[in-house]
Amino acid sequence: EIAEQTAALFDRGLLSGKQVFITAGPTREALDPVRYISNHSSGKMGYALAEAAVDAGALVTLISGPVNLPAPPRCKRIMIQSAEDMLEASLQNIDQCDIFIASAAVADYRPVSVAEHKMKKGNEEIMELHLIKNPDIVASVAAQQNKPYTIGFAAETRDVISYAQGKLERKNLDLIIANDVSRSDIGFNSDDNAVTVVSHEGATQLPLSSKRQLAHKLIEIIAAAEQKKDH
Amino acid sequence: EIAEQTAALFDRGLLSGKQVFITAGPTREALDPVRYISNHSSGKMGYALAEAAVDAGALVTLISGPVNLPAPPRCKRIMIQSAEDMLEASLQNIDQCDIFIASAAVADYRPVSVAEHKMKKGNEEIMELHLIKNPDIVASVAAQQNKPYTIGFAAETRDVISYAQGKLERKNLDLIIANDVSRSDIGFNSDDNAVTVVSHEGATQLPLSSKRQLAHKLIEIIAAAEQKKDH
Repeated sequence: EIAEQTAALFDRGLLSGKQVFITAGPTREALDPVRYISNHSSGKMGYALAEAAVDAGALVTLISGPVNLPAPPRCKRIMIQSAEDMLEASLQNIDQCDIFIASAAVADYRPVSVAEHKMKKGNEEIMELHLIKNPDIVASVAAQQNKPYTIGFAAETRDVISYAQGKLERKNLDLIIANDVSRSDIGFNSDDNAVTVVSHEGATQLPLSSKRQLAHKLIEIIAAAEQKKDH
Repeated sequence: EIAEQTAALFDRGLLSGKQVFITAGPTREALDPVRYISNHSSGKMGYALAEAAVDAGALVTLISGPVNLPAPPRCKRIMIQSAEDMLEASLQNIDQCDIFIASAAVADYRPVSVAEHKMKKGNEEIMELHLIKNPDIVASVAAQQNKPYTIGFAAETRDVISYAQGKLERKNLDLIIANDVSRSDIGFNSDDNAVTVVSHEGATQLPLSSKRQLAHKLIEIIAAAEQKKDH
């Protein structure tokens, strides 16, 4: 019932006519034609945000890594694999973007070289894998001239708020949505989440709720913050 | 129609009373609580083999990595994540196993150490990842006293048959099912496959067909070969 009330109260014109880009899911960094490095991101939070932004009247572009979720109705979805692909898709038409929400769990590093053929298992007991830092997508977006209102995520297992505040300053972001993935009741594959919204002014903790409800709440917060910044 | 004929001709008593263990899907090797190394195996071939073995009257234990497939009817499924988990599940009750089919795409290497907390991205442009060789599950099974009739898979991108024959001898296997994953029309996520069955006597190429049809054909070949070996 509370969910229904929330939905009923939700202002469907909040993001009317705004272009919102949302990244979601993991990236996959190829080691060779069959192997990759990835992470446990389900994409559920990003997809819920895309739905909520569409509900709020936004024109949504969802830039998604490999996940097992259907494309939300009335949004443009671009499927990608690697962080480099995601960066390219994110910067395309970025001058038209009003709000950029970086919810994807982008791999920090990728293999230096991708083997053309499947690597053969040798006799070596130990193998060294050389990784190189991936482009920082949300920082690249925030470094654009006339940057969109830019929101990052921080998935941490400890010192959640202090890490989030460091990230906010360092990457020139407008907002960070921080969550503690060490909690077993929430996190990557869960349908529920509890987050802390960190801005330059302070931190607001949102209670545990479904990712769907949380997405509506976050879109309200983001819309209000973006409007305040504009005017 | 051909599929129906194949199904109709399929001998439902071929593996009557036989215990068949089948590994399927990828393994995931944790780097930290959120990141892992994995591969593109969908598990479709192993699950199709499990269904075909059940159809042939076998008591099937399906030892599966993370895949998006429902458990086939009338088989016991054990879900695992890492190669070490898969080895443990495979060797449990191995003395009761008549036929072991190793269709899983097991990660050759795993990280030497798993970080307890999510690793922080440092300032380093380059990172070294230290990997250690995983246990060889199919070779461990084939090294057991009174080993089951043991079938390995070889997913290669080149020199498919010669690599398969090397593997057959080296690991003391009875049969290798080799496929060329560089072909774009078949392979990891496809519903079709074309394989070459390599035994100590020679190689037999099976034509491109659905994984379901191919699984029935492979179960016929495996049942005949295992019976020939028994008597």
